[in-house]
Amino acid sequence: MHGLMMHGELTITTILRHAMRWHPGSEIVSRRTDGAIHRINYADLGRRIHKLANALARLGVKPGDRVATLAWNGWRHVEAYYAVSCMGAVCHTLNPRLFADQLGYIVNHAEDTVLLFDVTFAKLVEKLAPSWPTVRHYVALADAGAPPACDLPGLLNYEDLIAGESEDFAWPDLDERTACSLCYTSGTTGNPKGVLFDHRSQVIHALSVSGGDWLCLRQRDSVLPVVPMFHACAWGLPYAGLMNGVKLVMPGHGLDGPNLCELIDAEKVTLLAGVPTVWLEMLRHLKATGGRLDSVERLMVGGAAAPRSMIQTLEEEYDVRVVHGWGMTELSPVGTLSVPKAHMQDWPAEKRYAVQGLQGRPLYGVDMRIVDADGRELPHDGTAAGALQVRGPWVAGGYYRGDNPESFTADGWFNTGDVAAIDAEGFLRLTDRTKDVIKSGGEWISSIEIENVAVSHPAVQEAACIAITHSKWGERPLLVVVPKAGAAVDKADLLAFFEGKVAKWWIPDDVAVVEELPHTATGKLYKLGLRERFRDFVLPTDAN
Amino acid sequence: MHGLMMHGELTITTILRHAMRWHPGSEIVSRRTDGAIHRINYADLGRRIHKLANALARLGVKPGDRVATLAWNGWRHVEAYYAVSCMGAVCHTLNPRLFADQLGYIVNHAEDTVLLFDVTFAKLVEKLAPSWPTVRHYVALADAGAPPACDLPGLLNYEDLIAGESEDFAWPDLDERTACSLCYTSGTTGNPKGVLFDHRSQVIHALSVSGGDWLCLRQRDSVLPVVPMFHACAWGLPYAGLMNGVKLVMPGHGLDGPNLCELIDAEKVTLLAGVPTVWLEMLRHLKATGGRLDSVERLMVGGAAAPRSMIQTLEEEYDVRVVHGWGMTELSPVGTLSVPKAHMQDWPAEKRYAVQGLQGRPLYGVDMRIVDADGRELPHDGTAAGALQVRGPWVAGGYYRGDNPESFTADGWFNTGDVAAIDAEGFLRLTDRTKDVIKSGGEWISSIEIENVAVSHPAVQEAACIAITHSKWGERPLLVVVPKAGAAVDKADLLAFFEGKVAKWWIPDDVAVVEELPHTATGKLYKLGLRERFRDFVLPTDAN
Repeated sequence: MHGLMMHGELTITTILRHAMRWHPGSEIVSRRTDGAIHRINYADLGRRIHKLANALARLGVKPGDRVATLAWNGWRHVEAYYAVSCMGAVCHTLNPRLFADQLGYIVNHAEDTVLLFDVTFAKLVEKLAPSWPTVRHYVALADAGAPPACDLPGLLNYEDLIAGESEDFAWPDLDERTACSLCYTSGTTGNPKGVLFDHRSQVIHALSVSGGDWLCLRQRDSVLPVVPMFHACAWGLPYAGLMNGVKLVMPGHGLDGPNLCELIDAEKVTLLAGVPTVWLEMLRHLKATGGRLDSVERLMVGGAAAPRSMIQTLEEEYDVRVVHGWGMTELSPVGTLSVPKAHMQDWPAEKRYAVQGLQGRPLYGVDMRIVDADGRELPHDGTAAGALQVRGPWVAGGYYRGDNPESFTADGWFNTGDVAAIDAEGFLRLTDRTKDVIKSGGEWISSIEIENVAVSHPAVQEAACIAITHSKWGERPLLVVVPKAGAAVDKADLLAFFEGKVAKWWIPDDVAVVEELPHTATGKLYKLGLRERFRDFVLPTDAN
Repeated sequence: MHGLMMHGELTITTILRHAMRWHPGSEIVSRRTDGAIHRINYADLGRRIHKLANALARLGVKPGDRVATLAWNGWRHVEAYYAVSCMGAVCHTLNPRLFADQLGYIVNHAEDTVLLFDVTFAKLVEKLAPSWPTVRHYVALADAGAPPACDLPGLLNYEDLIAGESEDFAWPDLDERTACSLCYTSGTTGNPKGVLFDHRSQVIHALSVSGGDWLCLRQRDSVLPVVPMFHACAWGLPYAGLMNGVKLVMPGHGLDGPNLCELIDAEKVTLLAGVPTVWLEMLRHLKATGGRLDSVERLMVGGAAAPRSMIQTLEEEYDVRVVHGWGMTELSPVGTLSVPKAHMQDWPAEKRYAVQGLQGRPLYGVDMRIVDADGRELPHDGTAAGALQVRGPWVAGGYYRGDNPESFTADGWFNTGDVAAIDAEGFLRLTDRTKDVIKSGGEWISSIEIENVAVSHPAVQEAACIAITHSKWGERPLLVVVPKAGAAVDKADLLAFFEGKVAKWWIPDDVAVVEELPHTATGKLYKLGLRERFRDFVLPTDAN
């Protein structure tokens, strides 16, 4: 028997309508590319979204078409998010930090028909445009009459494009399963894979992350997403923000300490969100200038593990509560947030920081399990490490065009590619990537833990641990290190350094000293390249 | 084009699984009927829910069957909520405060097959059971071997019933539109009407009310719902609570000041939820004893308008933030919550309390409009008052068995039966009930505002204003008053008292003095009865 409640499709259109109708005066404050500040309230933003939808329809954008953006966080990018999704098309956010050949691949794979871009990226777009036959229109996100100096076929100016359009648009009644946006993950193996979000997944994600334990979004908040809108929808903040009527403070292209601190002070920012490197840079600037974070209450950090010292400094010296989390584009992106439980509130600070430094516990909406090589679920004892799998209403069930089907299990879970342990309180601790873990005699060795020990040696600048084929054990670890400037690494000394720090059988079988390690476009260690380089390496322990 | 995210049905089963898996140690603390305290954690509660589902299946409960409860807030009632809904049956909460003939009607209208009841209600159930032919099993919510002294056919004991059952239950994969619970509204006109909630509506409601501006639920919260579980699902707290892993503190039948204050202190309650009368009684007790509310951060009040003095006292003397709201069973029940916006934070306290005393602004998920007699939408100017209509994913789209179809508009809105104004900031202010408003010459007169003026007259104890048919104006107001003990009401003096306080044409045409006014079972003024009594009354102003 069905209930008798209204259905009420969970669409991004309902967020836009709620924002315009109940928070018309709430603001979006943006740093323009020329450094000036731009302000607009939700009511005016909504009218411009209607104009943009009319303009895109005039350009021939149809339901399901992919409309790409290559832009920083700013009001026009928010307008594009809503106009494209609410008209039933798909907003495809391109990451300008990718290699040019990856961007070339992605636009063709997505078959984008329109590209809206910040003038910062004009030269990049000009270079790639000839390789993008599906893109019919290029739109520069610039002031009226201020086209960028670049040579693009049929280049349009955003403000000129929308100027004459009607402020009304009859949004279609969309099924909540309709695709709303597309974002490619920049994996370290193979081609980027597209995650095709739907309206329902984005709305449920925004509702859940707004909760008291998580982002705790309130209308009176001033929220500064440093995390870019081309990076997993800025962790959902453009949706959760408008849903709750907050002031959104958009930093544009200036993600440096001085720019952020000026915005924080001027706009009395209460919530920050971004990756650890941004906050380390901000803390350096604050220390150098004696600046404060008086208005800031919470700081969300993700994308990489937050150093414990950063959590401690923010709390003890700046009175800012750090919400450390873990997610993936495939998770919309929030999976876990490391918020201490009731009985941990009175723990000694050191012990509590250790908990906050973990990846965290899942929000309602995310379920997780860790499994061994045979797919058997492992216990939540904080020690057993296995392949991390996730499911829930905002988790990808497949990649665009059916790429990489092996990432999805037959019983409905997404294979994250991470190796993790979960403790009795439900806190997740990532230990490795599945493809990087070293499988020695049927047991797993965490490459990350080996690397962490290695970089704590005084002579080591950077380290990578990879698996080398071994005739007896299947795989054994090889440690590859870059010495510190002026220092020399002694193999025997370095291997002896591991004694007592890891299990005896985890100690690498050999050490290779190199001048530098390969990295990806986004700065991650590129282990695939390293494995190729050492493909024919024979370990001294291998009798064959 | 559809997105490629997992669907993930939004069912109450997913809340239960999340609670058991990620918050096994969180507690439900209950006041037993014998006054003692009972504690159970989510893991053990979950196992008992599985046992109860097995027991109910053994009793023959099938998907869609209605299983009724007549119980206070306590752990066994929570078990019933989850077991019944997650097995695909419908948990029908009965309100013991209704008149016996209403309870008789409701159980037969719902065709309940099983009734679980607290022993407090044994005599009531014994009396009504002969009139309930569909109820096949009566289950007393009592300790093993402690049956209540009553004469019921096939009376079962809850603990004996579940004792031998398995701790595993294979929950069915439910469509999220499946009905999960049923609650009848006790209107002042006609028979009670059934609201049939579904899993989806309850989950979305629980997600939304958990948000930072609203209940702001965090795992470390200790939540005391004084609002009964038979009253619109205790405002969704049994769902939102387990979703967030909070400690739930269940007061049982003792809703008096001493009991509540003892629980608040012992369990370090951070969030309270209940109707104004409960808090007024609690404040009286605190004043008399010098008690404090040190652990309490937030107090949610709804069900009736909260007096401004109560909001002020709680904030200024007890440092408790009041979240005042408005809702209806048909809204699951939360519609609006009166949380000041950013620019109101620094307002003088008096002005801010006035805002907090309004019914509030809608959460994401609720849309509202006010319309005039012709169905035209009225402006949000704080003055124009019209019929309040609501829509959204947790709003009823119809009543059980199709009762009262006139409550639902052709274009998809629910007619609340309230008359309201909405201001430019989106704050709702209820001015009357649609059926009580006086329609004079095409304009509306608020009966409530007339009554508010009348009771501020020193000689008036209680007042009711009703419409009397008028040959020229259609309707004109008649004021019916009960004088204070020992006081005399002079008609001309009382009418003169209105001068300058309301528009001249709002002043009643006559005053009738009575000894008492009729009330409903839940204590509301019963204007229908009053209108019947004065049906043939002729106003002195009516020439005909």
